[in-house]
Amino acid sequence: MSSLTPTREDKFSFGLWTFGWQAADPFGGPTRAPVDTVFAVNKLSELGAYGMTFHDDDLFPFEATEQERRHEIDRLKKALADTGLIIPMVTTNLFSHPVFKDGGFTSNDREVRRFAMRKVLRNIDLAAELGAKTFVMWGGREGAEYDAAKDIRGALERYREAVNSLGDYVVDNGYDIRFAIEPKPNEPRGDILLPTVGHAMAFIATLDRPELVGLNPETGHEQMAGLNFTQGIAQALEHGKLFHIDLNGQRGIKYDQDLVFGHGDLQNAFSLVDLLENGGPNGTPSYDGPRHFDYKPSRTEDETGVWESVKANMQMYLLLKERAAAFRADPEVQQALKDAKVDEISVPTLGDGETYKELLADKSAFEDFDATAYFNGKGFNFVRLQQLAVEHLMGARG
Amino acid sequence: MSSLTPTREDKFSFGLWTFGWQAADPFGGPTRAPVDTVFAVNKLSELGAYGMTFHDDDLFPFEATEQERRHEIDRLKKALADTGLIIPMVTTNLFSHPVFKDGGFTSNDREVRRFAMRKVLRNIDLAAELGAKTFVMWGGREGAEYDAAKDIRGALERYREAVNSLGDYVVDNGYDIRFAIEPKPNEPRGDILLPTVGHAMAFIATLDRPELVGLNPETGHEQMAGLNFTQGIAQALEHGKLFHIDLNGQRGIKYDQDLVFGHGDLQNAFSLVDLLENGGPNGTPSYDGPRHFDYKPSRTEDETGVWESVKANMQMYLLLKERAAAFRADPEVQQALKDAKVDEISVPTLGDGETYKELLADKSAFEDFDATAYFNGKGFNFVRLQQLAVEHLMGARG
Amino acid sequence: MSSLTPTREDKFSFGLWTFGWQAADPFGGPTRAPVDTVFAVNKLSELGAYGMTFHDDDLFPFEATEQERRHEIDRLKKALADTGLIIPMVTTNLFSHPVFKDGGFTSNDREVRRFAMRKVLRNIDLAAELGAKTFVMWGGREGAEYDAAKDIRGALERYREAVNSLGDYVVDNGYDIRFAIEPKPNEPRGDILLPTVGHAMAFIATLDRPELVGLNPETGHEQMAGLNFTQGIAQALEHGKLFHIDLNGQRGIKYDQDLVFGHGDLQNAFSLVDLLENGGPNGTPSYDGPRHFDYKPSRTEDETGVWESVKANMQMYLLLKERAAAFRADPEVQQALKDAKVDEISVPTLGDGETYKELLADKSAFEDFDATAYFNGKGFNFVRLQQLAVEHLMGARG
Amino acid sequence: MSSLTPTREDKFSFGLWTFGWQAADPFGGPTRAPVDTVFAVNKLSELGAYGMTFHDDDLFPFEATEQERRHEIDRLKKALADTGLIIPMVTTNLFSHPVFKDGGFTSNDREVRRFAMRKVLRNIDLAAELGAKTFVMWGGREGAEYDAAKDIRGALERYREAVNSLGDYVVDNGYDIRFAIEPKPNEPRGDILLPTVGHAMAFIATLDRPELVGLNPETGHEQMAGLNFTQGIAQALEHGKLFHIDLNGQRGIKYDQDLVFGHGDLQNAFSLVDLLENGGPNGTPSYDGPRHFDYKPSRTEDETGVWESVKANMQMYLLLKERAAAFRADPEVQQALKDAKVDEISVPTLGDGETYKELLADKSAFEDFDATAYFNGKGFNFVRLQQLAVEHLMGARG
Repeated sequence: MSSLTPTREDKFSFGLWTFGWQAADPFGGPTRAPVDTVFAVNKLSELGAYGMTFHDDDLFPFEATEQERRHEIDRLKKALADTGLIIPMVTTNLFSHPVFKDGGFTSNDREVRRFAMRKVLRNIDLAAELGAKTFVMWGGREGAEYDAAKDIRGALERYREAVNSLGDYVVDNGYDIRFAIEPKPNEPRGDILLPTVGHAMAFIATLDRPELVGLNPETGHEQMAGLNFTQGIAQALEHGKLFHIDLNGQRGIKYDQDLVFGHGDLQNAFSLVDLLENGGPNGTPSYDGPRHFDYKPSRTEDETGVWESVKANMQMYLLLKERAAAFRADPEVQQALKDAKVDEISVPTLGDGETYKELLADKSAFEDFDATAYFNGKGFNFVRLQQLAVEHLMGARG
Repeated sequence: MSSLTPTREDKFSFGLWTFGWQAADPFGGPTRAPVDTVFAVNKLSELGAYGMTFHDDDLFPFEATEQERRHEIDRLKKALADTGLIIPMVTTNLFSHPVFKDGGFTSNDREVRRFAMRKVLRNIDLAAELGAKTFVMWGGREGAEYDAAKDIRGALERYREAVNSLGDYVVDNGYDIRFAIEPKPNEPRGDILLPTVGHAMAFIATLDRPELVGLNPETGHEQMAGLNFTQGIAQALEHGKLFHIDLNGQRGIKYDQDLVFGHGDLQNAFSLVDLLENGGPNGTPSYDGPRHFDYKPSRTEDETGVWESVKANMQMYLLLKERAAAFRADPEVQQALKDAKVDEISVPTLGDGETYKELLADKSAFEDFDATAYFNGKGFNFVRLQQLAVEHLMGARG
Repeated sequence: MSSLTPTREDKFSFGLWTFGWQAADPFGGPTRAPVDTVFAVNKLSELGAYGMTFHDDDLFPFEATEQERRHEIDRLKKALADTGLIIPMVTTNLFSHPVFKDGGFTSNDREVRRFAMRKVLRNIDLAAELGAKTFVMWGGREGAEYDAAKDIRGALERYREAVNSLGDYVVDNGYDIRFAIEPKPNEPRGDILLPTVGHAMAFIATLDRPELVGLNPETGHEQMAGLNFTQGIAQALEHGKLFHIDLNGQRGIKYDQDLVFGHGDLQNAFSLVDLLENGGPNGTPSYDGPRHFDYKPSRTEDETGVWESVKANMQMYLLLKERAAAFRADPEVQQALKDAKVDEISVPTLGDGETYKELLADKSAFEDFDATAYFNGKGFNFVRLQQLAVEHLMGARG
Repeated sequence: MSSLTPTREDKFSFGLWTFGWQAADPFGGPTRAPVDTVFAVNKLSELGAYGMTFHDDDLFPFEATEQERRHEIDRLKKALADTGLIIPMVTTNLFSHPVFKDGGFTSNDREVRRFAMRKVLRNIDLAAELGAKTFVMWGGREGAEYDAAKDIRGALERYREAVNSLGDYVVDNGYDIRFAIEPKPNEPRGDILLPTVGHAMAFIATLDRPELVGLNPETGHEQMAGLNFTQGIAQALEHGKLFHIDLNGQRGIKYDQDLVFGHGDLQNAFSLVDLLENGGPNGTPSYDGPRHFDYKPSRTEDETGVWESVKANMQMYLLLKERAAAFRADPEVQQALKDAKVDEISVPTLGDGETYKELLADKSAFEDFDATAYFNGKGFNFVRLQQLAVEHLMGARG
């Protein structure tokens, strides 16, 4: 199955913190040793990925001296040069160290906020140095457990102040970098600011440079709020805000599972890949950025399982892509889509040149319209369409 | 307790469909007879409400002739004149009739969309006639059960087309009406378009006249996605989008319960009332629109219970308002807020005239900053503050 | 694909209220006309089902006279005789009529409880007359919205009193009928008694005749509590309590969706069918009762969609059965199961004849046991196994 | 408010791992230094608690030599003797060390299961030595992320084998100890065995010595499945299985928050305390065991906040107890309970000596029963009762 062998054209990327996760969780310590960065770059390259991403603290410890930091950066750069792997995205850790216990950009403590901005500014330089085009901001500690403990409006102002300033910095320095906010509803905070794709896009519209800032939605994060990830991605695409994407798996509303992509809600993963790969004009892709996996190899696995899980992510994506292509190519599906009037949503409700005035004058639209025909008739045939989708997902149609 | 007696200054309003709900649900038929509109207006007036709201189909049946429709409107107008009650908000039912089984503005069926727009246009005239200032749009049927059945981007385009056209109509007619979108994540559809406060605000930012359109968030709807309602309202206020509000009660992520306000998540109700009543400049209200209850008297109740539940909503709001005032007035709370640095979030992170350049030059912000002091020190005292909040909510502090 | 054509040996059955649902929901009226019982029996027979089930009120109205009731029963019996379809299960509606607004067996109103018992006793006679072997009890209205409104322990006593009495009746009459309780966490009540498979089994263990009462678990009901349906069914099987099963689809924690089986959580549907079909001794079925579909054709569908959805349920089951067989037959899967030590769980922890005493004396078990080997080693290979499962589900392995 | 000062008669106890939590979570390292055991015992004693509890690994490290272990035990015993604090409960950590990555009693790896049993047997001796009467078993790692990775029935058999053997041990040694299983639906595993109070009680009924094993339900764990904690506790009481209780706070279906008791769902905390304190015969307590707090001081807090949070737990319990007493004593509440027929549930449905036979002969129960009276009449007055409950909770009634 050659189409299932990952190549660089597939633009698969992985966070250094994903396969590198040592598997400590709230109820247990690490079960795995750290993964060396250079080894990881070589491994990813060998397995067919095109990129790796990282938080500053993944590459060098929070307390690293400048010399230690530079040593790790140089090792990374050499490995990239040796393999051809790239760093499409960089992000900053504003959540692990105790200093960020009430957040970074929106900590109640102003000194922490200033420190956080400095940490990010420094890391933007590194992103630029490494040629990253996207700078992700996951504000996992920006939030609260208690309603009285956080002035939300004040916190949003500070968030805006921070992002606007970072935008100034990137523009003034001529960096070819865009920002991508990653929403999450909760965990590790009781409630996190900008909890969904929607809240983040609404916030972005209030920034000084909305065009510089988009989203990095994560499958599991939206699903932790019970939301349909494909629907959220579609709205982000419609608003021009899908700058990056974090793929993984989640099994319902619970703690953040970070499973392999496709090992969670399989149907939604299918419709997502269909949207990304076939949702552009004439069935072309609707998104051309990295297919970035932000997942965690289960704590039960040793190193063998870690690299199996890396492969599984890419395998699942390619398999779903193949199935989505077959779904779109099937004449029976085409007919079912037609029966369900799915394409009719693209036809404007008002005719060419028509305004509400002409609509008001059109008796067929209201006075003569037969609403009763929709009782016991005019079915939408959605169940048949869904059944075809599931059968294609299951490879059950030829 | 005079402060707990509702008056018109409290701006309490109720939907005709709330106390008028006949209590049919997915598993059982009605348990109550219909409530007459004129009787309801008199009752609400007597109990201290200032307004009533309705969907067109609440006031007259979907199939009503123009004469029947006018008859009901005239009866309503007379009752309003007799009592002084007002109609602050009107909305349209685009979800009950079979014709809307796949939605109104975003049905895959273009003829349905045209019919839906006509139904709304007609109802806007009625809203204007009755002096309503807000026109709510709850798109409960705008959504899908199956990912393949709805082109989300196309549907958002049609939604936009509809809202833009309605905006033209209101402006052209010189109506003093603003629109308020009411988000909901699911039920009756598997996934509803614009599922949260955030998604709706992001959509509004893409409209022709964003200033004409805001939100009508409902307590239970946000909580059905596990989101913090007070936090959502705060973001809506910060973005200038809280045009109307639907208060009720919900006990967690499940079907839409529409309980009495305060009979769901009591702590969140407390922080919400605190925000609305004390969250403006110098502790003034942050919102001056109707306090609108969109709830359902439990199916177990007869008419006595219906009016008890109407009273309970207002009682709960006034009680929470009293408690929030005492919370804010308590010097111990003031000290705890200070200890928790809650107000420090209002201080800009950058000093007066400072930009990222000066920040980069400030060694105290980074090079000399002592991050280690946040380990085992510099606690935020949030638990103490929360305990004070709960004790005030419980009336346990003098 | 002959194995995908339903036959009576597959033991597929459908509730009369499923395809017969007229599609009224909390926000809209019916979109479909009623389905005639005789027509339905013929249609099911033609499509390959072996059984139909019903609530009393599905077959004849609550208010039916004895003559009307008998007329409907006789029509049904003739249709059964004509087609060979059977009635494997009957159940009673104790939730739709206003009289049951606070429940049937556990209404606070004792007269209602007596009426409920009479309604059930009458219906048990009908079940016996029609040869049904299972009598389901879904107590959808047995619950509360408010903690103070229901004495839970008293309600459980009444529940027990009712089930014990019905057991007496069945035994005294020599009926070959067993009872099956159907748990549900909420909807239409805020919280329902016996909310999960677990709570119901714990309750059954306290009955006079525990052997006479088992479970009728429903896919979506357990998933509405975020629980793993396959895991729940496995516990029910282990405790000997899987008397009947309701198959359908649910997409996460929200209102009760009653989608087609497999149109919800597809992976869990796969593992469920694998358990039912291959989970017995030597890979034989672990359950030999009806495969009963308790779902609702989406409100968007007309009659065509209704029967498409009936077919889709059976098609999904058979397809998943085929995939589960291939999964079990694949040598690579067998090896992966071995690597994951899945079968080792069947080996008792204590050796043959060993007790805690011998275990305490076995130094290899503790004193000499090398726990450190489990750090960075001794991985369980679960991700690889999961990937194989998903690939088989997707028909991607030969 | 003297009734709000904790005393030993209140039987408040705390886990050593609660205030001792160093606040590492999935996204960040510790923010606090360890708490010394002796210091903790003194502090708890001073604050009014009567007991402390622990896992073996809380008191001494997993790798401790026998000498180190004994040293810590002796220090603890001396502190207990000095203060009079007791150890009402002990539990074993079978979840933190990598060896338990697939569970303890139900790991697929038999050697791990043997090691786990030995670790527990050893700790039971310690429990007996310290006079603990309850031995808790939280099987947080007993579960799976992937359906194919765990034979649930086999795992339940192994669980049973382990608990039966431990029961033999306790009985043979004449220890005055009972076991209490603590259910949890998920986290750290995707799905945990015995996910709810119900599942655990059903399992207990299948043990060799069901009388020796009960429950230790935790507020947040049941609420993570969207279940009503008070209702679950009531069923446990009814089945005689409430052996111990873990009190804390949770705000809905999400990760395990372990907030202070009462800082989560306040209404449910109120009804719970009402049940525990007033739910026995004639309004006496229904439970006389420890009121055990299993919570975590928020990661934002330093040592001051830690002890504030310890106090807050006890303060909340006592405050709720006071409110529940006033609720029960209020004549208006008594009348409302009567109006709602809450007590009528205690009256058997069948009369004295009545069986189904007499019921069948009672025409007033069915043939002459007026079901139609329940339409638009015979309301249950539940909303009024709920409003009274909330007002009492808020201290708003005298």
